[in-house]
Amino acid sequence: MSGAVEHRLTEAGLLLPLASHALGAYLPAVRVGDLVFTSGQLPLVDGTLLATGIVGIDVDPDFAKTCAERCALNALRAASSVCDLDDIVRVVKLTGFVACAPGFITQPGVVDGASAVMTVAFGDAGRHAREAIGVAALPLGSPVEVSVIMQVRG
Amino acid sequence: MSGAVEHRLTEAGLLLPLASHALGAYLPAVRVGDLVFTSGQLPLVDGTLLATGIVGIDVDPDFAKTCAERCALNALRAASSVCDLDDIVRVVKLTGFVACAPGFITQPGVVDGASAVMTVAFGDAGRHAREAIGVAALPLGSPVEVSVIMQVRG
Amino acid sequence: MSGAVEHRLTEAGLLLPLASHALGAYLPAVRVGDLVFTSGQLPLVDGTLLATGIVGIDVDPDFAKTCAERCALNALRAASSVCDLDDIVRVVKLTGFVACAPGFITQPGVVDGASAVMTVAFGDAGRHAREAIGVAALPLGSPVEVSVIMQVRG
Repeated sequence: MSGAVEHRLTEAGLLLPLASHALGAYLPAVRVGDLVFTSGQLPLVDGTLLATGIVGIDVDPDFAKTCAERCALNALRAASSVCDLDDIVRVVKLTGFVACAPGFITQPGVVDGASAVMTVAFGDAGRHAREAIGVAALPLGSPVEVSVIMQVRG
Repeated sequence: MSGAVEHRLTEAGLLLPLASHALGAYLPAVRVGDLVFTSGQLPLVDGTLLATGIVGIDVDPDFAKTCAERCALNALRAASSVCDLDDIVRVVKLTGFVACAPGFITQPGVVDGASAVMTVAFGDAGRHAREAIGVAALPLGSPVEVSVIMQVRG
Repeated sequence: MSGAVEHRLTEAGLLLPLASHALGAYLPAVRVGDLVFTSGQLPLVDGTLLATGIVGIDVDPDFAKTCAERCALNALRAASSVCDLDDIVRVVKLTGFVACAPGFITQPGVVDGASAVMTVAFGDAGRHAREAIGVAALPLGSPVEVSVIMQVRG
């Protein structure tokens, strides 16, 4: 059924953005064979970041998790530029970068916000391998950046 | 011969862990076609990190290399959740994140600890492309995180 | 035509390095099926970094962009160790790590230096998905590190 993924997200209160944004000379996503690689996604809503700054200092970790959720929705919109979301058969790998200070050690809790979106969208097929990394700074001062590799029907 | 990879590791004094751990809503590894993507692995032994803190400050670089070795063994255990290690025909890419301060510039020496495990396990087929990156902080306060992409027999 | 990619780069004043360097126990690039994964590339020229230090503090962002351009050329040389550059049909994903302090938020402008090389080399096929990440420190004190995934003719 066309739009099944978007329907499941909407039922869970998760609205896909209308469009994806690029901050430089690159594409939102590229498909190669049956794999889709998205660009790193920021928690942009209508071109504005949900928050800026360092998680644990400027941004509450709970809100950073909400930001990660938004990154994941933007990743799905990015993927939709090269495939039908309903043709995604597997989320393969999700990488979450969290802007934080050296003492911050709960990156996984933040990135869980992105992982949960994939499970809502794809059920068991949304379960993925993952990296969670704490970094010095992200584009535009974003607290979180998420990229995803997905497998699509051949 | 079944268990050939584990045998080579054991002969070199490198014991595969019994199980892999996830710190959130994700899988230890995912297979897509003939590729296996592992999650980022920490130097956990029986659920406890070998060390915590910043390499070059709290953790000696030599011991961080030992931590990277442990990450690599955990990556192999993670891969074994989706394939037989004896079916791995190539280690494709290894990414090593090292928690460090801005002045620390010997990440490659740390990540060599992980790369060496792959050569012990797979010989020439264990030689891989690699990224070594110095980051602000890692989950649980880990000094090192390693993820791997491997090719398995079709 | 053999050498077409190198010719386009040379016409644009972008000289491919003679050889690629590894700082540890790894390979410049690995091919698996029709994908090539390069190792993380530094802005080395004849074995010496174009600059060292933190972008925005020790290294001007404009010069860091030049460093990213050099990383991209080194990535192409690395790829050439496992394929003919003229057989590359798509640049899939480019990851750019920028060594910077927490306040630095223009990583995309730096990494654009690498992305532009791919467009010169491959035209529309050089447009790619991308991550730009600000990190604490990079090997040898490099200001920038770039890795690339490319698709080659089967």
